[in-house]
Amino acid sequence: MDFLERLHWRYATKKMLAGTKVPEATVERIVEAARLAPTSSGLQPFEVIVVTNAEVKERLSVAAWGQSQVKYCSHLLVFAAWSNYTPERIDAFFDLSAELRGGRTEGSEAYRKRLHATVLPQDATENHHHAAKQAYLAMGFSLAAAAIEGVDSTPMEGFDAARVDEILGLSARGVHAVTLLPLGYRDAQGDWLVTLKKVRRPRGSFVTTVD
Amino acid sequence: MDFLERLHWRYATKKMLAGTKVPEATVERIVEAARLAPTSSGLQPFEVIVVTNAEVKERLSVAAWGQSQVKYCSHLLVFAAWSNYTPERIDAFFDLSAELRGGRTEGSEAYRKRLHATVLPQDATENHHHAAKQAYLAMGFSLAAAAIEGVDSTPMEGFDAARVDEILGLSARGVHAVTLLPLGYRDAQGDWLVTLKKVRRPRGSFVTTVD
Repeated sequence: MDFLERLHWRYATKKMLAGTKVPEATVERIVEAARLAPTSSGLQPFEVIVVTNAEVKERLSVAAWGQSQVKYCSHLLVFAAWSNYTPERIDAFFDLSAELRGGRTEGSEAYRKRLHATVLPQDATENHHHAAKQAYLAMGFSLAAAAIEGVDSTPMEGFDAARVDEILGLSARGVHAVTLLPLGYRDAQGDWLVTLKKVRRPRGSFVTTVD
Repeated sequence: MDFLERLHWRYATKKMLAGTKVPEATVERIVEAARLAPTSSGLQPFEVIVVTNAEVKERLSVAAWGQSQVKYCSHLLVFAAWSNYTPERIDAFFDLSAELRGGRTEGSEAYRKRLHATVLPQDATENHHHAAKQAYLAMGFSLAAAAIEGVDSTPMEGFDAARVDEILGLSARGVHAVTLLPLGYRDAQGDWLVTLKKVRRPRGSFVTTVD
């Protein structure tokens, strides 16, 4: 398995084969990759919602301006980031950490207090952006996992987030939809994008070295 | 190669083996993964700076509150996101796309105009956040590539971004440092974190299904 080859293979699939299911175990590995992603201070400030219900996918597709992948995908992953950091959310991480790592330390307790002091007074919108960035990185891990598994996917920002929140009842849980990731298999006959060349800036205008 | 196994293997390395170099070809693959990452509308609104110069790494390490990985890593990747979208930056993507895909289409031209109309009037800070999110996703691809290659890495937000911009002359290029990613090899004897269990929320509190 050459990872870069898999990244060349993947593309933002515009048309999925309707009715072709990705095996549950494969979807679990794709979600697990997101769960294993590193996040700022380890807080994992987001959730993943996996939608397979046909009626809900159809409603979400309308909220995504009718884009068909949302309706015809096998599984739709919704990445929903915390609307803000809270004392409880921060403390829950340190509780879990103490449980898994055999207790609290002076260092971890000082770090917990520093997070309270620095993160909580910040503007909610800034904090939500910060949480969303962690979700994007984690979606990167899911995209990579899907490509390795030979599963097609489409990272999407083009949707009415407030409507998606409403359909999935996300606001009540203190999270907001930031990206969608339909999973499935490309309809190679019906997708206008599948034959087009990948467009990426040449390395010369993307990478600089300081040596 | 089991991808999830590689993600369990990786961790935010706190101490790198000083003086042990990652081969250039390996670093190139890690950077190439970021270049191949999908981005919003394909704009790739960020750059990667690869620092190996010892004096520059040392100065950047001071800007990162003395964290030793920045100084002792083999290669330091700096992800720098566009401070804002501009007409020229948007058009450059469509020029490149036309070049690679054999000309412009009515659809691509309409899309270019829509991007001008929607993105350019937006608040610069919002646009920078949006660009930074794309850089986080791409850093996810580099993190995944590094783990697959058996190279250690440390995703970092804890640094004085203005100072890093100044050291690398980024502001003049219209980009701002958003994350650092030191690459190298873990100092398994000297790293306090290497033996600690990975802390992740259990699947039950991370994933919800709607079926």
